[in-house]
Parts: sequence; C-alpha cells; structure tokens
Amino acid sequence: MKPISLTGIKPTGKPHIGNYLGMYRPALDLMQKYQGMYFVADYHALTTMHDPATLRDLVYEVAASWLALGLDPDEAIFFRQSDIPEIPEFTWILSCFTSKGLLNRAHAYKAAVDENLTLGRDPDEGINAGLYNYPVLMAADILLYGSDVVPVGLDQKQHIEITRDIAEAFNRTYGDVLIVPEGIIQESVMKVPGIDGQKMSKSYNNTIPIFAPEKEVRKQVMRIVTDSKRPEDPKDTQDNTLFTLLSFFAPPDRLEEIRQLYLHGGAAYGELKKELAGLILTYFADARDRYADLMADKAYIDDVLATGARKARQMGQPYLAAVRKATGID
Amino acid sequence: MKPISLTGIKPTGKPHIGNYLGMYRPALDLMQKYQGMYFVADYHALTTMHDPATLRDLVYEVAASWLALGLDPDEAIFFRQSDIPEIPEFTWILSCFTSKGLLNRAHAYKAAVDENLTLGRDPDEGINAGLYNYPVLMAADILLYGSDVVPVGLDQKQHIEITRDIAEAFNRTYGDVLIVPEGIIQESVMKVPGIDGQKMSKSYNNTIPIFAPEKEVRKQVMRIVTDSKRPEDPKDTQDNTLFTLLSFFAPPDRLEEIRQLYLHGGAAYGELKKELAGLILTYFADARDRYADLMADKAYIDDVLATGARKARQMGQPYLAAVRKATGID
Repeated sequence: MKPISLTGIKPTGKPHIGNYLGMYRPALDLMQKYQGMYFVADYHALTTMHDPATLRDLVYEVAASWLALGLDPDEAIFFRQSDIPEIPEFTWILSCFTSKGLLNRAHAYKAAVDENLTLGRDPDEGINAGLYNYPVLMAADILLYGSDVVPVGLDQKQHIEITRDIAEAFNRTYGDVLIVPEGIIQESVMKVPGIDGQKMSKSYNNTIPIFAPEKEVRKQVMRIVTDSKRPEDPKDTQDNTLFTLLSFFAPPDRLEEIRQLYLHGGAAYGELKKELAGLILTYFADARDRYADLMADKAYIDDVLATGARKARQMGQPYLAAVRKATGID
Repeated sequence: MKPISLTGIKPTGKPHIGNYLGMYRPALDLMQKYQGMYFVADYHALTTMHDPATLRDLVYEVAASWLALGLDPDEAIFFRQSDIPEIPEFTWILSCFTSKGLLNRAHAYKAAVDENLTLGRDPDEGINAGLYNYPVLMAADILLYGSDVVPVGLDQKQHIEITRDIAEAFNRTYGDVLIVPEGIIQESVMKVPGIDGQKMSKSYNNTIPIFAPEKEVRKQVMRIVTDSKRPEDPKDTQDNTLFTLLSFFAPPDRLEEIRQLYLHGGAAYGELKKELAGLILTYFADARDRYADLMADKAYIDDVLATGARKARQMGQPYLAAVRKATGID
C-alpha cells in the first residue's frame, strides 16, 4: 500500500477560492503519492461550537465541499471524526504519556491565555478542557492509522511536533509500537489575496465564495479594490489584486495578453473583473452543480462518510489493539 | 429498577482487612438499596502505572478480591473500565464543557504541583495530561449510566462536586440530558488500626493481608504492637490496637469476656493474638478459598468482566446516544 497522508478538516462552513487554492487543491494533490485520509474534525469543533443545528449544518457543508471539489470517496478514505470511537479511546491512553508542559506551550491555548491576561482576567477564564487537550486528540487522530505524513501549514508545525513527542514518549515506554509521523510543511502555500488585497480570509470579510449564488460571486468580484488608473494608463501587475486573482484562473495565453495590456495600457478594471467572474464561475461550474446535488441528498453524504468510517476503523483497530496490548489494558 | 450506585475500584493489589471493613463491605452493602455497579478503574491506573504485566496482575487481583469477598456478579454489574469505549468517547465530549479552572483546583493535581514547588521544580514537572484530566474521566464514568448515587469518602467529596459541575454545565447548554448524581458521603467509615496502631494502610506497611498464606497472616497478627503490661495487669480497651481488631471479629459474647479480662486482669496479649489470627482466618476462610480458585481460573474472571461490560454498555449506550444527539455529533 502507498504511504498514508492524513488531513484534518475543520467544519468551518462554505469555502472560498482562497481555501480552494491554498488548502483543498494541495491536499487533494497528495493522492498522487499517498493513500489520502481526510476527516471532518467535528470533535475538535465541539470545543467551541455548542449549537447542535449549526454544527450539523457545518459538517454537511464541509463534506459536500470536499466531495464537490474533487475528493473521490472511492480512492480516498473520507470520514467523520466522531464516527471513530477508537479516537477518543486512544486519546485517553495517549494523555497518560503526554507531559502537561507540552499542552501548556500549545499555541492555541497560549493565545487564549494571553488574551485573558491582556483583558486582566484569570488566565484560564472561559477555557475548557477540550481546547486545552486538543493536541492530544490530534495526536490520536494522526497516530491511530499509522499515518506517515501530515500536511501542515507553517503555523501548524507545532501540532506535528507535539504528536511526535507523544509518540516518542509512548515508544520509549513500550517499544516501537507507534509510527512517528513526518510533517509535510507546505512552504509554497499560495498567497491568495481577498478583494481588499489582504490575505483572503473569512475573518477579514473579503472572500470570493465558491458555492454562493452566481449573483453573489459576481458582486464580490466586482468589489475587488483597484486604484484610480484609467484603462489607457500603464499599470503594475505586481501586488495588483485583480491581476493576481486573474493569474489563478485565466489560461496562459490570455493571461499574457492581459499582462501586456497592464504594461502598455488598455486594461480596463471593470471589464477584467467581469472576465474574472466568468472564469471563476466556469472553473467551478461542475463543482457548483455537484455541491447543489449533494446538499439536496444528505443521505448520500451520510452514506459516504459511513463507508469511510468503516474503512478508517478497519485501519485503526489493529493499531489500537497493539496499543492496548502494550499498556496491559487488553 | 432500583436507583443506581456506582463504585470505582482502583487496581491497587491485594486487600487487607482495613480495606475490607472500610471499603469493600460498605460498598457491597449498597446492593440492599441500589442496583450496584462496580468497575475496575484501569484507565485511571494508566495515569501512573506504565508496566503492562503489573497492571494486568493488579486487575486480576482486585477483580478476584471483590468476587471472593462477596460481590455477586449476577446481581451487581461488575466490569472493567477499559472494556467500555463509550467512557473515553463521553470523556472527550464532557471535556468541552469542563472549565479548565475546575481541573486546576482538583486535589490530586494540586498536591502534585505543591510537591513540585516544594522541591523547587517546575509546577507541572512529571505531571501527565491523564493525571490532570482524571476528574473528567471520572465524570464520564459516573454520568454514562445515569448513576443516582456515588459513595465517596470525605476526602473524595470534590470528585462528585466536579462531576456535578460538569453535568450542570452540559445541561445548561443542551437541556436536562444528564442526571446530576448525589454523593453518599460515608461519614462513619470504620477506623481500622494497623499492627502499629496507625491507620491500616499499605503505605505504612502495617497491614494484615486477607489473601496471603496463612503463615503470613498469623505472623502479621503476632506483630501487633502492645504495651509491656503483664497478663494479670488491668488494661485499657480504649486505643488498644489488639482489642480494637478483636472487636471486629470476635462474637459478641466472647468479646465481652475479653473486655472483662482487659479490665480486671487476665488478658494475655500473646494468647489473644493467636485467638485473633484464628478468628480472622475463620472469618475469611471461604473468601480465601474462593480467591485461590479465582486466581487459578483467570478465564472465568475475564468472562465475568466481559458479561458485566456487556450489561454496562447496554445501559450506557442510550445515554451516550442522547448526548451525541444533543451536541449535534450524531
């Protein structure tokens, strides 16, 4: 079998093109070299999301997004974290080999503490044990299937380091039971600007959504911030939000034509925005159709995730059995 | 059905008569009023016990001890914690409703921190996440079956308070899903002196074991510390270790005779020790036989615990399903 790559997916709602280019596409490309496992991390979501209807909706939206954007559930193993009871079981076992100091130093927890301190509150105010323990849950997610690699952004490098620390502590006690995974740091993650030129991010409210109604997609593209240059003025392509976004979707020949118009005059922002909106809608036309079909057939999504969970459990159970045997809990 | 009482049992090895009188017997007496559930807490043990062979032995020893000392597996539900995957699953869910401050204040964690500080070390040195999180695991243990009461010693009162806090936080979010249990504080726990007159405890090395070879039981009894009074001297029965131990095992008439000998002269310590050893060996004769039989038939113990686990899971699964539904993880 191919080596295993594991990708955790936060259920954070409908994706935008920044998510697609920066995360979905590189994560799906891993399937070329690896047996890809992808899971919707609803147990992680529960640390902050305490509204059941919203959580259910988010899980369906994110599952439909991945399926629509190219995740092939016959090739990949696609499942929902909370369908794998082996994960929390393994989490408890690993917690007995996780030094508390490791958790104290985890970025997400430290950020929450820093915010409390800034506001003059108790350092742990409003912090629940789930948030504090999520690095152990993540280690269980990764180690349960003997994952070989885990793609992480630079800011998530610590996750894989903590996971490796925990696995090594376990192996020091019981011998080489767990596979110590490698992080694949995705250094060349594409920088996709939002319509205001900052990094595209839901928190900046500057996104171009993939699955919104066509009118809304067009409206967001038309709102891309440009300078006051007239069509006939020469323009710089560097740091030009519109040009950068065009470069992701225009065919190479057309992109070169546009570049010449920028450099020598003739690029009308309004016309190019319309062109970009058309390119985006064409690029995602099939995905948008599939997404609509999927969201209209949640039983199918349930079915896909249930099948994925069966496969994931089959892979995880021998590891958990070996872990239980090693510890004497068997 | 009767209300449910839940008793957790640490696998700490062979019991002594202090354990029997102070814990086993009152815990077994609960069966008169409650549907008793008793579980061997091996997941708790794993926070400190990292030797698999020792852990396995301790689990068999403690299971055989309870069965030998009167736990009827047809009436009680007797199981092993690690056979119930619903417990760690529930633990994760509850952790998302456990304020980290609660765990910071838990006695066992605070004691470990205090020791580190006294020794000039980092407060969390050598503390693993399992130790820190054990109150959440304990809450899951209790809440999974809708336990009504939990017998606790005065020093464990905090456990039930933390469990109630967690259950109430969950219910505040999702409605009355969890049964908030009551602690039964066992105030009149018998004070059983060890052979040196201090409280009988393995850590003081002053115990009279129940299941040791007869010679060892006799030897320990003969080592009971007495004063230098001669047989004919009058003696005080108060705070007299030998008399206190006799009072647990001698029939009322004989105890009254011994009291008179103490008060008026005629009590020979050596003879009375021999008598006490005989009384203890007689009292536990059947239990000692059963214990030997059980330890020679571990497959039977496995079978009893597996049957108990099936019953416990049947009771717990509807609660966990309700919890998952409430949170949207379903």
